[in-house]
Amino acid sequence: MNSISNPIVAARMADIEPFHVMEVQERAHKLEAQGRRIVHMEIGQPDFPAPPQVVEAAIDAMRSRSLGYTSSLGLPELRAAIANFYVERYGVAVPAERIIVTVGASGAFLLALGALVGAGDEVLMSDPCYPCNRHFVRIFDARPASIPVDEQRNFQLTAADIRQHWRSRTRGVMLASPSNPTGTTIPAPELRAIIEEVRGRGGFIIADEIYLGLTYGEKFTTALSLSEQIFVVNSFSKYFNMTGWRLGWMVAPESYLREVEKLAQNLFICPPAPAQYGALAAFRPDALALLENRRREFQQRRDYMVPALKALGFSVPVMPQGAFYIYAGVERFAPDSHEFALQVLDRAGVAITPGLDFGKNRPERFVRIAYTQALEELQEGIRRLGKMPGA
Amino acid sequence: MNSISNPIVAARMADIEPFHVMEVQERAHKLEAQGRRIVHMEIGQPDFPAPPQVVEAAIDAMRSRSLGYTSSLGLPELRAAIANFYVERYGVAVPAERIIVTVGASGAFLLALGALVGAGDEVLMSDPCYPCNRHFVRIFDARPASIPVDEQRNFQLTAADIRQHWRSRTRGVMLASPSNPTGTTIPAPELRAIIEEVRGRGGFIIADEIYLGLTYGEKFTTALSLSEQIFVVNSFSKYFNMTGWRLGWMVAPESYLREVEKLAQNLFICPPAPAQYGALAAFRPDALALLENRRREFQQRRDYMVPALKALGFSVPVMPQGAFYIYAGVERFAPDSHEFALQVLDRAGVAITPGLDFGKNRPERFVRIAYTQALEELQEGIRRLGKMPGA
Repeated sequence: MNSISNPIVAARMADIEPFHVMEVQERAHKLEAQGRRIVHMEIGQPDFPAPPQVVEAAIDAMRSRSLGYTSSLGLPELRAAIANFYVERYGVAVPAERIIVTVGASGAFLLALGALVGAGDEVLMSDPCYPCNRHFVRIFDARPASIPVDEQRNFQLTAADIRQHWRSRTRGVMLASPSNPTGTTIPAPELRAIIEEVRGRGGFIIADEIYLGLTYGEKFTTALSLSEQIFVVNSFSKYFNMTGWRLGWMVAPESYLREVEKLAQNLFICPPAPAQYGALAAFRPDALALLENRRREFQQRRDYMVPALKALGFSVPVMPQGAFYIYAGVERFAPDSHEFALQVLDRAGVAITPGLDFGKNRPERFVRIAYTQALEELQEGIRRLGKMPGA
Repeated sequence: MNSISNPIVAARMADIEPFHVMEVQERAHKLEAQGRRIVHMEIGQPDFPAPPQVVEAAIDAMRSRSLGYTSSLGLPELRAAIANFYVERYGVAVPAERIIVTVGASGAFLLALGALVGAGDEVLMSDPCYPCNRHFVRIFDARPASIPVDEQRNFQLTAADIRQHWRSRTRGVMLASPSNPTGTTIPAPELRAIIEEVRGRGGFIIADEIYLGLTYGEKFTTALSLSEQIFVVNSFSKYFNMTGWRLGWMVAPESYLREVEKLAQNLFICPPAPAQYGALAAFRPDALALLENRRREFQQRRDYMVPALKALGFSVPVMPQGAFYIYAGVERFAPDSHEFALQVLDRAGVAITPGLDFGKNRPERFVRIAYTQALEELQEGIRRLGKMPGA
């Protein structure tokens, strides 16, 4: 990957991979430029725009304020609004002081891992998992230690995994619930057991909850209800439909606030101000009502997609409980999901994400199918997939 | 600094310092809460809001687009607009492909250094310099090697410094012209000599040009006119008055684009979309005319402040050619500029930044005075400073 013409490249770069889905997307855009219509099931962001309340609040701020740097930790009123949201929606009291507004969830991962790990350290995480997770760890010269998780275990880590894989150089664990790419969650009793297990070893937990609001069916709550000593990452991108605004937040243990603040000052100065003023309106009752309607629409899509994919011959061994992804097995269609994704694009005009982006645990068996399009478009996608040989 | 209660803290954190000016600012805010009026000469951002063209372009985009993720490298049309700006204003042809839009200049430093350095590497930089520079290097587990520069040499590095301080583990050099905190620039012949010197050693150069548009008097151009093999960092924060929007850019050598793109995808996903759409309007002739008026206002302020400070007894050994800072010696007033800054705040109600934030090279002798307030407010500040013992 490193160009031979570069005299200086950091060692870490050999382990930082590009998003493989970009190859699918670039090819899709080429086909579209040739006049072909593509159904996009590869996209990891909601098809909904930010709620109009958010847009108007941002516009008000842009017209009435000069939008200079905010506090490095975010607007105090936004931190308070997030704290209030935890109480109202999840019944969990989180002091606003522990809430740090960040440049997307990405910024939160950089702050947490930058404060926690360095060369020689290892961080446990599931495979498959969100591809950036292992890269965030690697960027700080620590090593991701991926634990293969399969459909029999809900594609999630367990306390038993922690026990089995913890080594002397292990410093902590990254979890995601609901997870990208599988949409599965960690049941509260298992999460409690994981927290106990890690606490007993003096390690840290970073819990990715950026899909927290997007669960379907079961009542689901934040890991913050179980411990004040874990790092929890959240985002305005997914549930709040504000991807391009680049705003997220982190809840940190109180003892780490000073470290995180130093890093936030130096790495980012502050999160984007237009997004912060907009986000203040995201917690208004009318905005939340709109977002709940959208959540129900995601649920309808999931409830359509899972049986439709199964009927075509995809395997969906675990019903995804959240996010907007289905991690589907393609064993009936092809031995290599990467090849398959490119074939599906060329032959059926449907873009999907190959498993390759999510790790090394049998990625050739899976593709990630996102239901971030209107139901009619998903139906068109299913119709097209039905024409693939093997369906 | 590290709390004893934290079982796990990355080793780098011991070297990451908070901004010392925050102590001054917090104290200033306390005084203001008590009803006292403070003159703010500590603030490193323009007092002007973003140009109205920028605000309206961002509002148009917010109302007409859903503002999802953009390309990781930024909107193609914004990269083209920046390329065009280099041609129009500086007569330098920079291919848009080499321009990467970033989350502030901070994001650009993270991408460049993340791709370039790791444990065991050293990076040369001047002392004093922008405090985050040494921290950006340290975050990637490399070491800043600070070279003391004094007023006799314009507070800037020379090719002779590079020769003298280059060691086997040195990987490159960070420069800033115009510089924060001194406002001084590197003359083109010296810059050319530095580039030659570093090239001969196979090292990299990261040139911070975030104050490039803010120079007064002399004709000044970008280091891009001298080499295609250096990294150049710029920002919409200073000249374009968009601090809180968090948008910057980097020009990278062509051979590094793939590495930088991988990092950008993984660290940031993309820069904030509202800011990017707004920034498209920053290059309109009417916006640039407004910004040039503001630049002239900064020049007037500098031309007022430097003699006024000298008349009070501050030493200003080098006339700052750019940015909006004066690095002023306080030897006539106090042996310790940090103490002095707190005294000036308490007694005179003027907030200034102690030299401590900018390095270890005689910081006790200097304060940074920013002229980011209207002339009348600066006059009030000078009047107040005139009441300090010693003035």
